[in-house]
Amino acid sequence: MDSAKVSVKDLENFIVEAMHRYGIHEEDAHVSANILVTTDTWGVHTHGTRQLRPLLKNFPIKRLDSEATSEVIREGVAWAMVDGHHSMPFVSAQRAMELAIQKAKAAGIGYVSVIHTSHFGAAGYYATLAAEQGMIGMAMCNADPNMVIPGARGKVLGTNPIAYAVPAGQNKPVFFDIATSAAAANKIIRAKLLGQSIPEGWLVNAEGEPTTDPSGFPESGALMPMAAHKGYGFALLVEVLAGVMTGAALTKEQPSWVPDIPGNPPGFTNQGQMFIAIDAGAMISPEIFDQRMDWLVDYIHDAPKAKGSERIYLPGEMEWEKREQALANGMILPSDVVDSLRGLAHDVGIKTLPFEMVTDN
Amino acid sequence: MDSAKVSVKDLENFIVEAMHRYGIHEEDAHVSANILVTTDTWGVHTHGTRQLRPLLKNFPIKRLDSEATSEVIREGVAWAMVDGHHSMPFVSAQRAMELAIQKAKAAGIGYVSVIHTSHFGAAGYYATLAAEQGMIGMAMCNADPNMVIPGARGKVLGTNPIAYAVPAGQNKPVFFDIATSAAAANKIIRAKLLGQSIPEGWLVNAEGEPTTDPSGFPESGALMPMAAHKGYGFALLVEVLAGVMTGAALTKEQPSWVPDIPGNPPGFTNQGQMFIAIDAGAMISPEIFDQRMDWLVDYIHDAPKAKGSERIYLPGEMEWEKREQALANGMILPSDVVDSLRGLAHDVGIKTLPFEMVTDN
Repeated sequence: MDSAKVSVKDLENFIVEAMHRYGIHEEDAHVSANILVTTDTWGVHTHGTRQLRPLLKNFPIKRLDSEATSEVIREGVAWAMVDGHHSMPFVSAQRAMELAIQKAKAAGIGYVSVIHTSHFGAAGYYATLAAEQGMIGMAMCNADPNMVIPGARGKVLGTNPIAYAVPAGQNKPVFFDIATSAAAANKIIRAKLLGQSIPEGWLVNAEGEPTTDPSGFPESGALMPMAAHKGYGFALLVEVLAGVMTGAALTKEQPSWVPDIPGNPPGFTNQGQMFIAIDAGAMISPEIFDQRMDWLVDYIHDAPKAKGSERIYLPGEMEWEKREQALANGMILPSDVVDSLRGLAHDVGIKTLPFEMVTDN
Repeated sequence: MDSAKVSVKDLENFIVEAMHRYGIHEEDAHVSANILVTTDTWGVHTHGTRQLRPLLKNFPIKRLDSEATSEVIREGVAWAMVDGHHSMPFVSAQRAMELAIQKAKAAGIGYVSVIHTSHFGAAGYYATLAAEQGMIGMAMCNADPNMVIPGARGKVLGTNPIAYAVPAGQNKPVFFDIATSAAAANKIIRAKLLGQSIPEGWLVNAEGEPTTDPSGFPESGALMPMAAHKGYGFALLVEVLAGVMTGAALTKEQPSWVPDIPGNPPGFTNQGQMFIAIDAGAMISPEIFDQRMDWLVDYIHDAPKAKGSERIYLPGEMEWEKREQALANGMILPSDVVDSLRGLAHDVGIKTLPFEMVTDN
């Protein structure tokens, strides 16, 4: 269980090189590296460079295609539907949000979906692209089932994430990215490895009953939705917006994007993703929007603190501070990320690792 | 604590007559009555006809204006901003969703906001208007603060509701309407009246610490967000979409719509509401959308049941079944609704109540 210290630039160079060796073209590799490394700088290591190794394994077995490019297949003034053609999913997702921003410039609001695609990392990244352009951004995707719903047992819906970002005047964008489950699967798997029990409300067992024992997961049991029926409703909304109305594979018809999961069906994944940009500035003027966001941010920061609380954070504020630190001083990658990157280096024959080991006792 | 049995028609006639006596015009009264009574038929009595008495009290003190009509003040191809001019809020909200549907017919997606308005009942009602036209509907509004956020104490944000409805092929629309708090304020007040404790995760005390003792609320303490930081993030999104970008009053600047709450400031409320319609059929063809929704509904109904579970419901399914029953056989109004309607009858001098008392116990 060793973590490692890395500079942002070295990590980026390393994964660009690894992608080249998998046949990913120059520009696609740079776009993808920026997305994954930015996510690590936020401290969101579950969705950063750790994900690259399993994702790249899809290329040699033709579940993804490094020669393909995404394509608009249908569009209107305020929307577009994109076929990812199983191209590099980070790239098709970024291009889709860029198109949503363009649509929003013309129509005030833009909705763009992508199908025939795979894991795009952290949904929140794409939302921040809109915020950088002074727009409200939203991103969602459906996923293979991992979550129970009220009254059921077993895995019925994906943990279908929802993310948004809002430009906030003189402050960094407000930025929020959650799964619709009560807890992330990897938290439960970590507790299992450590032999610990988990809080109530996270997991059901094989009979669909709530349990604090993680030992059966992920083979049996399922994640519980956040806030019970509320999380169910949000996950279903994402399944509709990113799945039903886009033409993506739905629920149990969606194979995992991780190719070497036991029992995973062969063939392409067909995840559905959706991106919304809203040009708030066009509706209420950018100056007034900025002033009102500054007022709201100050109001939240200045709210009376709970006993023992020293500071109140806006969503995303911790992540921006971690990023600033990481850009200035490098960052510590946890052991699971280190293991994944070491495995990736081995897969592609890179001898020099970009990080310096830090022993945690 | 007596409940009462009422027919849908009698209840509607009664509240239309009560609105006439407050000077509400014929058409506005009928639109409003339909919204409130439909909400009661769903069993959502917290947001049905019970709300009419306190809402109507805003008219004589000029916080609402029965002569006013809402007006589009700015618009684009896919959006519009409406000034409610403090007209009957149910009517301005319904007209706003109708405009969002019209915009979505032209542009695929329509976003319409309303400011200078007040309590519009159940957000979900407006979402169903879009679903009736074959579109996905969403509705949200900001509200006066009632909810704490992580790290704070006291009431910082409103319980800002989020609702959606999705047409579902041969099934009734999927339909979801929630507050972003863990529990509704009236559940906590009911426990207080009955001297009961409440589950963990619902309430913080005056110091901002979680408590199971409801006795201090609502005078001190605050509701907790659903799923902790996740509910905070959703409530903030609503504050941005329905408040910041529309020009509505934000957080502590929003007086309660209930005029006789102690300490409530005089003058107009300025709630912000937002309505989205998405023409999924235009993007993927109505037939394919319907087929895919039917598939998803069947998949959920047919999911393996948890131990002790007999049936799995789609969001909204229970509400549609209650409505069918209510239309056929009338419905039982709980005692708080009966009390509110009896008070309303007294306020306007209606002698004959539309319901038949049912003694509990």
